[in-house]
Amino acid sequence: MPVSERDRPEAPAEPFVPAVDEAPGSRAVPWPHRHLLDVDVLRRDEIELVMRTSDAMREVLARPIPKVPALRGRSVTILFYEASTRTRVSFEVAAKNLSADVVNIAAATSSVTKGESLVDTVRTVEALGADMLVMRHSVSGAPYLAASVFGGSVLNGGDGWHAHPTQALLDLYTMRRRLGSVEGRKVVILGDVLHSRVARSNIWALTAAGADVWVCGPPTLLTGFGAWGRDRGFTVTSSVADALRDADVVMALRIQGERMTGGLLPSLREYAARYGLTRERLALARPDALVMHPGPMNEGVEIAPDVAVGLQSVITEQVTNGVAVRMALLYLLAGTAP
Amino acid sequence: MPVSERDRPEAPAEPFVPAVDEAPGSRAVPWPHRHLLDVDVLRRDEIELVMRTSDAMREVLARPIPKVPALRGRSVTILFYEASTRTRVSFEVAAKNLSADVVNIAAATSSVTKGESLVDTVRTVEALGADMLVMRHSVSGAPYLAASVFGGSVLNGGDGWHAHPTQALLDLYTMRRRLGSVEGRKVVILGDVLHSRVARSNIWALTAAGADVWVCGPPTLLTGFGAWGRDRGFTVTSSVADALRDADVVMALRIQGERMTGGLLPSLREYAARYGLTRERLALARPDALVMHPGPMNEGVEIAPDVAVGLQSVITEQVTNGVAVRMALLYLLAGTAP
Amino acid sequence: MPVSERDRPEAPAEPFVPAVDEAPGSRAVPWPHRHLLDVDVLRRDEIELVMRTSDAMREVLARPIPKVPALRGRSVTILFYEASTRTRVSFEVAAKNLSADVVNIAAATSSVTKGESLVDTVRTVEALGADMLVMRHSVSGAPYLAASVFGGSVLNGGDGWHAHPTQALLDLYTMRRRLGSVEGRKVVILGDVLHSRVARSNIWALTAAGADVWVCGPPTLLTGFGAWGRDRGFTVTSSVADALRDADVVMALRIQGERMTGGLLPSLREYAARYGLTRERLALARPDALVMHPGPMNEGVEIAPDVAVGLQSVITEQVTNGVAVRMALLYLLAGTAP
Repeated sequence: MPVSERDRPEAPAEPFVPAVDEAPGSRAVPWPHRHLLDVDVLRRDEIELVMRTSDAMREVLARPIPKVPALRGRSVTILFYEASTRTRVSFEVAAKNLSADVVNIAAATSSVTKGESLVDTVRTVEALGADMLVMRHSVSGAPYLAASVFGGSVLNGGDGWHAHPTQALLDLYTMRRRLGSVEGRKVVILGDVLHSRVARSNIWALTAAGADVWVCGPPTLLTGFGAWGRDRGFTVTSSVADALRDADVVMALRIQGERMTGGLLPSLREYAARYGLTRERLALARPDALVMHPGPMNEGVEIAPDVAVGLQSVITEQVTNGVAVRMALLYLLAGTAP
Repeated sequence: MPVSERDRPEAPAEPFVPAVDEAPGSRAVPWPHRHLLDVDVLRRDEIELVMRTSDAMREVLARPIPKVPALRGRSVTILFYEASTRTRVSFEVAAKNLSADVVNIAAATSSVTKGESLVDTVRTVEALGADMLVMRHSVSGAPYLAASVFGGSVLNGGDGWHAHPTQALLDLYTMRRRLGSVEGRKVVILGDVLHSRVARSNIWALTAAGADVWVCGPPTLLTGFGAWGRDRGFTVTSSVADALRDADVVMALRIQGERMTGGLLPSLREYAARYGLTRERLALARPDALVMHPGPMNEGVEIAPDVAVGLQSVITEQVTNGVAVRMALLYLLAGTAP
Repeated sequence: MPVSERDRPEAPAEPFVPAVDEAPGSRAVPWPHRHLLDVDVLRRDEIELVMRTSDAMREVLARPIPKVPALRGRSVTILFYEASTRTRVSFEVAAKNLSADVVNIAAATSSVTKGESLVDTVRTVEALGADMLVMRHSVSGAPYLAASVFGGSVLNGGDGWHAHPTQALLDLYTMRRRLGSVEGRKVVILGDVLHSRVARSNIWALTAAGADVWVCGPPTLLTGFGAWGRDRGFTVTSSVADALRDADVVMALRIQGERMTGGLLPSLREYAARYGLTRERLALARPDALVMHPGPMNEGVEIAPDVAVGLQSVITEQVTNGVAVRMALLYLLAGTAP
């Protein structure tokens, strides 16, 4: 039963050290959330706990046999209504590394879609034995609906344009491993911000962690962000030069080709010319600025191939960190299961 | 080698207690069938053994780690020529709970269909190491053909309009857990009986267990059932009122939208109005009558949403019982493997 | 780091006996190749080692629990850009029998194809934790590109018309188990040689092992093979009678229906009439000649149904041997991982 936001005590003075080689139930884990639906409800000390637990999981990944028994006997169902390889496999590997049993359901190509309601599907998944449900859905808010009926823990693997909390936490983790802290660092999110759940969740996590967040893209892809930026305290601009100047981190977002048809973007070629992350543009940032991308990349569109594999790129590191962060989140949530 | 129907001795006086924590080979299991193709060949004492073994499996499912080593080292291949999530995952979870290795082949979307004959595919699956084959196919009788060439055990996961034996056994198990026994109980199967393998297998199992079976649907969807009903001893009617009056169990069948095109049904709306299981109609049944559905449901068509989630509904329980019953069947069949 | 072709020492006088019940790292395995991309780089003593290791794996397959801990903690990703069931499942079973963790990515139906380059996908798969990558791709040479960026071992599961090394090695293994040695034996490869990676890899392996190789098919499907045959020392003919006369082994190749449209073949019916492996044609070969086919078969086209299941057919044996040979290759390559 999650504790309400107001009543929750502060984190203990003595920071919790995750004992990842034991089962999570064997020691009280100070983690109050049963689900992970977005990062907006996470307090700073809770984000800190995710980061510390992810450190412990990175250490597990470095072992010859990168496995711990933490979730032995738990069943994790990965229910994806949108095609995905990277995120699906990342969760699958994370769960298996924790010794959980994994069931994959590719709802896009399965009979799940033959008229059955999402609520019925979630009830069925639970009745089949799932303790934890990782879910991706094209409709914003769908994981919230799932969480309202599922008896275990729901992890949002991306919902519509709304949220992608594990991506935001792995991005934050990647920055912290490289920079120590993101506090006061200039972090630029560049591209189709409007349609990006990655951007939304990153804005929440990065501002909570004290970063100086800039979002940058064509004016048509920033609609509504001005007001949010003033309220939440981040900068919104269409000037790539302003955004990149002295940046510590530049995160390029994936451009979805299908957005073009809506008239919001002139053409991929023009987008690349004006907003693509090229070596020339990157030179405006700090010399050791990190280059990030959530993948999969359209090389030559939102990011130039030489930048994607350049010395400043941490894109592959993001992928490995993603496994560690998802292990950490599964581990923390498993401690809250009824 | 299965014993012929005539020569088989009666069940032992001392009922067999499944020792599910041991490997099936460690004790003689009095189960004579190598395959599970339909329920029509099961004797009453054999159905009883399935029920008792399922009780033992429900107990396993309630453990913190719902696993037993019974099928360790056995390989179960799940070969589905029709899309399915619920049944496929149910078998997968059941097999994994018994510590078997599982290979999934979604034949509908795989290269299995590139002109290879079913017999060749089955021989290949066996040569790849499968001990048990769970199979769903759109052609009635396909699992019988598979069983004629496969060296291990074949479990029919649904074939055409013909049979769905595990569904019938899990339905029977669900009724028995709730009602104690189905003997003399009025059980109504409501809907598109004609195209339903679920209905056919349930009729066999329920009449064998002594239930008072009624099948009910539009006259066009009952063709041929009148004669079978007179022969097998069940009631066939198109009157929903007659069927539901004082019923102990009402099982609504899924309506397949594609049946409409054949002219057998006027429209989904008219079907719902005349045969849908609504709260008003359910009031004709006994006040504690069970509501069942094999899933996935078209809510608002064959069953009203409030009935589907009402207090009398055991639809979610059917799903969980399905895992236990499939564990029981895999366990019993594994004891007969050569 | 692979040793260059020239500098590699000869195999030790004392032949290596694979200790398959130990982890491969526990003893030096004299296997110099990090990847398996084709058979053309394998020396005769290396092929010998694959054969001996496969013998050990066949012995494992005969155990009640056909599993060894050799690859415990290793992660094998199976990335298939072409639909395949037989080869994919064979690798999956082989890896699981060695206690590896397996991740399946069906790239044909996944988001892998949304514009991401192969190189990025391979980097991502590695960052997700894969130690070994089994890959099938419709473009010849794709696995070489993958191997140039992947930090672990790449196994080619078939690339375009180019190579299918594990198929060639399992075919060779099947012949050797039956014939003792292929040295001097007449082996006929019959069918659409031009488009067949199976044929290409088999020609390399069989000529290396000293077989008398004959390739036979319609003249339009032999283009370019004449020169290669003169160079490599195998016979090319369009005369089925010449090819089959006194053959020890006849391997029929799968005809792909889609080749017809290119005008290279008149019709399936005519192909079957002129080149199909019928009982009459097989009578030209030695009475105990082996009949082989890589599967899946078009029965009645390239092979008659009675020949496919006749006493001389070892087609099902090929499938089982395929699991053993793939276990052997995964095992040998695992010993070379950094």
